[in-house]
Amino acid sequence: MTNLPRRRLLIGSAVLATAPLFATPVFAQGSPADPLPSWNEGAAKKSIVDFVKRVTTSGSPDFVAPADRIATFDNDGTLWSEQPIYFQFAFVLDRVKATAPQHPEWLQKPQFKAAIDGDMKGVMAAGQKGLLEMMAATHSGMSTDEFNAIVKDWVATARHPRFKRPYTELVYQPMLELLDYLRANGFKTFIVSGGGVEFMRAFAERAYGIPPEQVIGSSGATQFKAGADGKPILLKTPKVEFIDDGPGKPAGINRFIGRRPIFAFGNSDGDLQMLQWTAAGAGARFAGLVHHTDAEREWSYDRTSHIGKLDKAWDEAKLRNWTVVDMKTDWKTVYPPQK
Amino acid sequence: MTNLPRRRLLIGSAVLATAPLFATPVFAQGSPADPLPSWNEGAAKKSIVDFVKRVTTSGSPDFVAPADRIATFDNDGTLWSEQPIYFQFAFVLDRVKATAPQHPEWLQKPQFKAAIDGDMKGVMAAGQKGLLEMMAATHSGMSTDEFNAIVKDWVATARHPRFKRPYTELVYQPMLELLDYLRANGFKTFIVSGGGVEFMRAFAERAYGIPPEQVIGSSGATQFKAGADGKPILLKTPKVEFIDDGPGKPAGINRFIGRRPIFAFGNSDGDLQMLQWTAAGAGARFAGLVHHTDAEREWSYDRTSHIGKLDKAWDEAKLRNWTVVDMKTDWKTVYPPQK
Repeated sequence: MTNLPRRRLLIGSAVLATAPLFATPVFAQGSPADPLPSWNEGAAKKSIVDFVKRVTTSGSPDFVAPADRIATFDNDGTLWSEQPIYFQFAFVLDRVKATAPQHPEWLQKPQFKAAIDGDMKGVMAAGQKGLLEMMAATHSGMSTDEFNAIVKDWVATARHPRFKRPYTELVYQPMLELLDYLRANGFKTFIVSGGGVEFMRAFAERAYGIPPEQVIGSSGATQFKAGADGKPILLKTPKVEFIDDGPGKPAGINRFIGRRPIFAFGNSDGDLQMLQWTAAGAGARFAGLVHHTDAEREWSYDRTSHIGKLDKAWDEAKLRNWTVVDMKTDWKTVYPPQK
Repeated sequence: MTNLPRRRLLIGSAVLATAPLFATPVFAQGSPADPLPSWNEGAAKKSIVDFVKRVTTSGSPDFVAPADRIATFDNDGTLWSEQPIYFQFAFVLDRVKATAPQHPEWLQKPQFKAAIDGDMKGVMAAGQKGLLEMMAATHSGMSTDEFNAIVKDWVATARHPRFKRPYTELVYQPMLELLDYLRANGFKTFIVSGGGVEFMRAFAERAYGIPPEQVIGSSGATQFKAGADGKPILLKTPKVEFIDDGPGKPAGINRFIGRRPIFAFGNSDGDLQMLQWTAAGAGARFAGLVHHTDAEREWSYDRTSHIGKLDKAWDEAKLRNWTVVDMKTDWKTVYPPQK
């Protein structure tokens, strides 16, 4: 895994050089061996491929042992879309509607009533406190097993309002290729996201090939108790336990992984500290940002967006020479082909 | 990995049966193929080998896909000794002594003064609150990287008072074989311990072959900030963040792993809920306890011990037919040979 196959470049009948596979755009493009076929040739793709070569070539001064090839990815806006609202919040609104009959008391709370009536302006007027209250209400009161089944069912049936596709089809094809490429080169890939850990785990293995134990996210406290049949359950409570965002990301990485990533990708200011933490380690490091520049195929937003605001992290990326992916020019395709 | 080789039992010239390798004591004992050579033949060893066969034999009704072969182990008293005091507490006392010159204020606190004077009775008189205060004082105020280096240094130099060996040599040889055996059969092995997660991670990979990201333990909060050289660090604070003991163990398993183990091993009442949680899942499940019965080679203690009390979990094991390892009769050797 650590040595990419090498082959000779034959141009005419002259052997020009030996070069590691994928080393140069000239034959990587369109070649069946190109591991990142949905990436246009350019600085972003080159920085990724160059980095992977450096850390996986034995004898290279930048060689990193496979056990230390830890790669962390934000989820919303980095691996899948996050507009017009975070997908987990679309789940919350759907759950409020679906379970409203069991909660007549919700009609007394403006933001719940607005959600039930499909009045997005009313929902948003409740502000962050109101949204978090709906989040807590829809993510607690059931066992972890039950919650997992609820999310799986929603993922299978819900459709995105703009694209009319399941949310898990709005993952980025170039990033799926990047995950595969890293894993094929001995990396262990993790999600490190502000999203709910149990929400993401319900689909991350299928959507990204990332198993539950490699998903780090925000979490609520659980309570160990006897279930209806006397068997123990973990009951989800509304108490927030950990927010895996901003400075919480390096803290979460330390808590869950216990070693520093050598590769990290995000898209917003919430990823800044994860990228700083990753980049500050010794040896070769990769820090990347997805810049949403493609209003036609996806969305275009950065410094002033309420969702996925990219401002300070963008400045830091320019200062530190991190890789910034321009979605419009760097990606040949955005989403996987429709199933 | 999932199919153990089968061979025929030849007694005289008659073929008596086909049996999976390791199935019967008669040829497993002393055979070079025995994966658990430090285990005496008996009910405990048989229950382990039978379980592994059941869940790894394709076509068996109890077959479990490799991804779901999650095995969790307590650490203190299950993978290494925990007497006369938890080894992490020996570390705390050594650190109090080593750093006392920088903390003149400690001389005003009875339990710190007792620790500095080597007065164990005085230390113990401070009770749990006093001990936790020393734990917090010695586990905070430095970066996570610095703490890692401190523990590694201690592990390399400290010696156990009774055996005069490094603490990491007081791991149980039969359990090392069990960890290897499970991994050779496609299991992913995790530590789930009340001990400090960063303390254990400093030696778990070397001692047990368990990488940092598969160690779950109690933790303190960290603070992301700029270090002396301007590079970001995670500063360890005295604030307790999570206690991975008792009902905290299934909660920790859910938070870190996100799926339920099919195999769990402990040795005390602090492991009861982890074992209940593991055993209550659907399909084949293994729950095991190490019973400390060997005062000569290790220690003998159970229902009335202050450390590693085994009382309720023992009753539950009898009731549920869990595997209870009698250290004295089930283990041929306790510790690995001296280096």
